[in-house]
Amino acid sequence: MSDTISPLAVPFPDLPAIAGVTPRIARAGYKDWGRCDLTCVELAQGTAVAGVFTKNVCCSSEVELGRAQVKAGRARALVVNAGNANAFTGRRGRAAVEAIMAQVAAHLGCAASEVFVSSTGVIGVPLPADKARAGVASALAAAPCSWQDAARTISTTDTFPKGATATAIVGERTVTISAIIKGSGMIAPDMATMLGYIFTDAAIAPAFLQQLLSHAADRSFHCITVDSDTSTSDTVLAFATGKAGNARIESFDSPGADAFAAALEAVCLQLAHLVVRDGEGARKFIAIAVTGAVSDDSARRIGLSVANSPLVKTAIAGEDANWGRIVMAVGKAGEPADRDRLAIAFGDTPVARDGEPVAGYDEGPVAAHLRESEIRIAIDIGLGEGRATVWTCDLTHGYIAINADYRS
Amino acid sequence: MSDTISPLAVPFPDLPAIAGVTPRIARAGYKDWGRCDLTCVELAQGTAVAGVFTKNVCCSSEVELGRAQVKAGRARALVVNAGNANAFTGRRGRAAVEAIMAQVAAHLGCAASEVFVSSTGVIGVPLPADKARAGVASALAAAPCSWQDAARTISTTDTFPKGATATAIVGERTVTISAIIKGSGMIAPDMATMLGYIFTDAAIAPAFLQQLLSHAADRSFHCITVDSDTSTSDTVLAFATGKAGNARIESFDSPGADAFAAALEAVCLQLAHLVVRDGEGARKFIAIAVTGAVSDDSARRIGLSVANSPLVKTAIAGEDANWGRIVMAVGKAGEPADRDRLAIAFGDTPVARDGEPVAGYDEGPVAAHLRESEIRIAIDIGLGEGRATVWTCDLTHGYIAINADYRS
Repeated sequence: MSDTISPLAVPFPDLPAIAGVTPRIARAGYKDWGRCDLTCVELAQGTAVAGVFTKNVCCSSEVELGRAQVKAGRARALVVNAGNANAFTGRRGRAAVEAIMAQVAAHLGCAASEVFVSSTGVIGVPLPADKARAGVASALAAAPCSWQDAARTISTTDTFPKGATATAIVGERTVTISAIIKGSGMIAPDMATMLGYIFTDAAIAPAFLQQLLSHAADRSFHCITVDSDTSTSDTVLAFATGKAGNARIESFDSPGADAFAAALEAVCLQLAHLVVRDGEGARKFIAIAVTGAVSDDSARRIGLSVANSPLVKTAIAGEDANWGRIVMAVGKAGEPADRDRLAIAFGDTPVARDGEPVAGYDEGPVAAHLRESEIRIAIDIGLGEGRATVWTCDLTHGYIAINADYRS
Repeated sequence: MSDTISPLAVPFPDLPAIAGVTPRIARAGYKDWGRCDLTCVELAQGTAVAGVFTKNVCCSSEVELGRAQVKAGRARALVVNAGNANAFTGRRGRAAVEAIMAQVAAHLGCAASEVFVSSTGVIGVPLPADKARAGVASALAAAPCSWQDAARTISTTDTFPKGATATAIVGERTVTISAIIKGSGMIAPDMATMLGYIFTDAAIAPAFLQQLLSHAADRSFHCITVDSDTSTSDTVLAFATGKAGNARIESFDSPGADAFAAALEAVCLQLAHLVVRDGEGARKFIAIAVTGAVSDDSARRIGLSVANSPLVKTAIAGEDANWGRIVMAVGKAGEPADRDRLAIAFGDTPVARDGEPVAGYDEGPVAAHLRESEIRIAIDIGLGEGRATVWTCDLTHGYIAINADYRS
């Protein structure tokens, strides 16, 4: 955790415990720092699991293994290493992960394939197997810890711990979701890695949990960007212990499935926003709502083109209502758009319509909006019904300072 | 032109005059600055023209018109306005361009469609027709100017004037190419616009000139990136007056066609490199050579993924041999790649091979290379024969200062 806290930070929420989920932490000493860096979460027998992973083809062994493990839908434990991403480390890196899986499986009396491992930190240094072994042993022997402690322990250069919760009424039971995430702070040579873990006491079929998680990820984690760089280790896992006692959710026909899906999506969205709020150097939280595209996917791609544009992000950092840069970013997205139908608004103020500046445009209210810390940009493409909202942060000297001024 | 000159600047070369090409400049006063900002180049009758234009769908009227004009293959004049991009200005913007075309055509006694217009600068403000009219009249009456004056006049926030030249022996004649370009400096709310103009006395069929220019652009202008943002106005035009007296080059079967193609490509590459050397805030010129991809196109896309990665660009700015970020950028390119075959080198020093750090890797020579101002990164994908080189600059505090610290 960094000393300087993001100006967009929010307090850690009061996360309810989840029956069947026991987090513990320990010091493996992956880096020369005086804090816990290994998290081990024990999960009750019968816990269902689903996951979404980075699309980066140079992914870590953890991601490769996790992607295969999640297909069986069962989990008994999660181990998260902070300080070493163990990516691009070849066979030695993979062996280190398999050793952790075997060690935890022996302790819990489960299959190694039920133990999920994530790692985050420096790339290209194999995870030290001895430190991992001692760290895991120490975590397994430790007393349970709080969610906040776990959220701090999975962090690398995050500036604040991040969690989210929601409940849903499923049949006649209340099910609870508690989730933690890390991501978006970084100090060279570490990667900006997003690792998110969602725990619920709901009983739900693994295949349906996967379906809901993938859908929620498309509208949350896949709609945020800090700097357009995709980590080799990004992972979001959802674990469902089934301890709430609800009739198992099998599909959208099951009672309460809609409520659970909405709660899961709300949690994912909150987690995604927390990552943006801790974006490197971020001083402004930016929501870009695209409407009128030819499809929802097209709207998302246009939104991400704007959200990834360094010229748009620096303009917002400079509190400059430079909508010409938004026109440029829409036009370069490679998606259907018609310059002469485009409309753009900052906050509640239209600045351009039908491909021209709005007549009698008054920059006053726009300038006032841009001085706030939460910025809204609305873009109407004028072609169809497709819509999407994406979130990003501004691009500031802080980003350069974090990523360039430090020598590894 | 900016007061602070890029540390990567090079002196303006001694550009030969091209028979049939007469540049002139004038003050239209598009901005409140005390310098010439309108360039008018008169071209001899029978001049062939070819062009490549931005793919940004929100392009300016100048680009829309130019794209149509170039199909006829004939040009008599070029007018370049600096200080106003006239993009996203609707019908009024288009009328301003058409007025310039008509005014020059009347003076030269040619068709309006033979007059090419480009504009660069602020977006969303229609080009003031009265200033344009007076400026064009004044340029048409002016004495011819030097290439360097023309290169300065088409600039906006460039920090140095840019030109390139080459010759080729075609049949028994020497043909000459002289070219100027502007691009990559910017002050909000201006666009980073690349405008390049290539003049030659060669006699060449317009369709073949277009073929050669498109090919050269794919290997030069389309292989550079400063900040991944694509301007609404990017334009490169090639004009061939035919005054060298060579037998007209019709195809690759014509004598000297290969030599001319090579000279044209050399000029395009030099122009493209000059733009990178004037990239906003640039302190290092970076060449990224990708080999072993499944195709040349795939290699170029991988190279651009690396060249556009803010994490890679900030690492180079920090002189940090953070090859993990290169692995990440290769992996996110969406192109075929195999983590376990990847090899990476900085300068002449391999740092990773077969998906792992090189055994006994010594960072000393890499650190020394990174302290230089020209950086070479070699990436071998290990899958095929595809290759491409792309060029970019580092991402520094200077970029943020130029684009965020200024309020429009």
